[in-house]
Amino acid sequence: MTIDSQAFALDLPADVEERRRAANAETLSRLTAAEPVLVDVAPAGDVVPGMTPSTILTSGAPLEWHEYTGGQRRAVLYAAVYEGLAADLAGAEQAIESGRVQVRSTQQHACIGSVAGIYTASMPVLVVRDETHGNTAFCNLYEGESRHRLNYGSYGEEVVTGLRWLEEVMGPLLAECLRRTGPIRLKPLMARALRLGDELHSRNTAATLLLTRELTPAFLDLESTEHAAAARAVFEFLSRNEYAFLRLGMAAAKATADAAHGIPYSSVLTGMALNCREFGIRVSGLEDEWFRGAHPRLEGRFFDGFTEADAEWIGGESCVTETIGLGGFAQACAPTLQAYQGGTSEAMRANNEAMYAITVGEHPDFRLPPLDFRGSPVGIDVFKVLETGVVPVIDGGLAGKDGGQIGAGVLRPDLDCFTDAADAYRRRYVTG
Amino acid sequence: MTIDSQAFALDLPADVEERRRAANAETLSRLTAAEPVLVDVAPAGDVVPGMTPSTILTSGAPLEWHEYTGGQRRAVLYAAVYEGLAADLAGAEQAIESGRVQVRSTQQHACIGSVAGIYTASMPVLVVRDETHGNTAFCNLYEGESRHRLNYGSYGEEVVTGLRWLEEVMGPLLAECLRRTGPIRLKPLMARALRLGDELHSRNTAATLLLTRELTPAFLDLESTEHAAAARAVFEFLSRNEYAFLRLGMAAAKATADAAHGIPYSSVLTGMALNCREFGIRVSGLEDEWFRGAHPRLEGRFFDGFTEADAEWIGGESCVTETIGLGGFAQACAPTLQAYQGGTSEAMRANNEAMYAITVGEHPDFRLPPLDFRGSPVGIDVFKVLETGVVPVIDGGLAGKDGGQIGAGVLRPDLDCFTDAADAYRRRYVTG
Repeated sequence: MTIDSQAFALDLPADVEERRRAANAETLSRLTAAEPVLVDVAPAGDVVPGMTPSTILTSGAPLEWHEYTGGQRRAVLYAAVYEGLAADLAGAEQAIESGRVQVRSTQQHACIGSVAGIYTASMPVLVVRDETHGNTAFCNLYEGESRHRLNYGSYGEEVVTGLRWLEEVMGPLLAECLRRTGPIRLKPLMARALRLGDELHSRNTAATLLLTRELTPAFLDLESTEHAAAARAVFEFLSRNEYAFLRLGMAAAKATADAAHGIPYSSVLTGMALNCREFGIRVSGLEDEWFRGAHPRLEGRFFDGFTEADAEWIGGESCVTETIGLGGFAQACAPTLQAYQGGTSEAMRANNEAMYAITVGEHPDFRLPPLDFRGSPVGIDVFKVLETGVVPVIDGGLAGKDGGQIGAGVLRPDLDCFTDAADAYRRRYVTG
Repeated sequence: MTIDSQAFALDLPADVEERRRAANAETLSRLTAAEPVLVDVAPAGDVVPGMTPSTILTSGAPLEWHEYTGGQRRAVLYAAVYEGLAADLAGAEQAIESGRVQVRSTQQHACIGSVAGIYTASMPVLVVRDETHGNTAFCNLYEGESRHRLNYGSYGEEVVTGLRWLEEVMGPLLAECLRRTGPIRLKPLMARALRLGDELHSRNTAATLLLTRELTPAFLDLESTEHAAAARAVFEFLSRNEYAFLRLGMAAAKATADAAHGIPYSSVLTGMALNCREFGIRVSGLEDEWFRGAHPRLEGRFFDGFTEADAEWIGGESCVTETIGLGGFAQACAPTLQAYQGGTSEAMRANNEAMYAITVGEHPDFRLPPLDFRGSPVGIDVFKVLETGVVPVIDGGLAGKDGGQIGAGVLRPDLDCFTDAADAYRRRYVTG
């Protein structure tokens, strides 16, 4: 594979290659100069561009409705019921087929989805603005550590209660906090979390602690208001849920990746995403096309006696963190993840170090202490992936066929979508 | 050195060697079974056994007053002035020489000292009880990140203001918090901090965050009381001072080490301490004798253009953390320390791993993720040190001749005090 694919980069005409290098440098510069800031928390219907009361968003490159299967399809249908757009699953099917409810990709709305990545209009979203480039991205709120979550294709009393609590308590309270603290700069907090054992995809314990501390002055202020009980409840939620920061990290990463998108001649990735059928990548210089391929290979650790046979792909876009030099690209920082997703400390370092071969630069702010403060590898280049045969290492959670999270592990995409992207690049910039 | 010193262990009579092994196993069991719990914060004069209004404690194996020199002597004299026992330094000299003020070692009072380790009766102390073995240890409060602190031999308006704030605000407020939260179990918190990039001697960032979160419910409760402003101020202090937890870790370590002290035939260390003249070790089976030797060798990083020539030994007992399997013995967990004390990530792992050769066991609760969750090396054996020539690795701060902290680094004691301890062991248990 390595020898064949080297041809891709080598056979670019000199002038194209020169433009590609310059474009990739600009993409890197945007990826690293982004300054994502949490500015608000509000219902998706109020702030997400193009989101209507009858829109449902879900993870991954867009599919036709009939292409959605299994847990991801179930999650969309449950979402229609949750939002009151249908009385039951059959009604939801009808509403979607009739066009009364519109199913769209998160990616079409500057949103980013965790696992199935379900958004309805009433769900609160974190609003993150990239202060350097002016664009905004969104992510909705973490449902908590229960194995049963809408985003893992589960539904029921527990799921509904949790989602309503996010809508009625957590969302408004975070908005109230932000009015008091002012916007929260995320890059310094995330850079710091890397020094505290997070890699900011599958481990967010330190970032959640740091966020909690950022919010505490507001919690204290709210003690004397009608929001006191909500503030206590949100503090308690953040104390109990070590993963809570992930959604904010994803919104920051999405804002960052979007800022680097749309640079002609760039062969650097600005998106990786899963839906139930495919793994897909988006390339800065290739507009909004998603190059789609097989689901990743999985090296996982399964919970509670589950096995790989129980796993199901139901979508997931948290790999946007890897797109900006975090997650698997900062894995060496988080040796504690061994206990969660398997592997050894040495393997995690090796995974991390391997990513320098397929990236265009090193992050000036995301420094990795276990690699002697080397900047994290950032800016995945389609051609470097094909030249080396090295694919991105992605940390991730695993969904089960009957709903719920059943494990965690390292995902390695197939080369096929990279090959397709390189072909498209050549068609567009060389032979086109 | 290695070949010579091997003789020490090898020539113990079989019956003594058998008793030594059993005693060392019991020492290990006590070191690892200890359950240090923060139960109170109170003025030293109220709770430290034998502490009178005219007692001043200072770090290290006890010395005669005339033996104290430089910054440590200066710190004791300033302490007398701070406590109102003398009007000025000359008066303080007189008061001590006349016996009106008594200078004693922290070690004689179940206390543990940071750098010069100055205690006066009015200073608040953290009261930590080992719930397993019933003993109690104490440590006073961190003065903050200023380079100028009484414990570094500095004095002046800034130092006095800081100490008074600890006495009048921080101490009473922490006591008030504990009345609300109840006792705080320290071992789970410390074990967790190791997974968050601390080694709990020179890096305490995560532990300070975790402690802050433990206290936050009390801070919230206090908002509606007359303690509201103090709670805000203490929250702010803990947010600004990443080192704040160290004193609590030291008190926990001292309670742990004391619980393992006094086991006949044990050759395991239950104390390491510096004063201005010497490095000293205490051995579980050799009563309260301190075996004294040269100051450690230093591999340091100096701040602000200082050099090794500016460094001065003014005492320090934070190496009690190494005595219970933390600090240098968990150094692999804290690669971020490179930025503070020099070295490389690889060297830190190697330092950490070398400690398994001189310890009697692995800690069941202090697990090191970068070493694939191997338990930290714990229980330093005098004979293993002499057999291998490997000395304990100690993380530490460095004091300057003109007062203040001027750097940080890794300290390696000389073998001399270990040789003396082994001689004493033979005199007591073999030829005695």
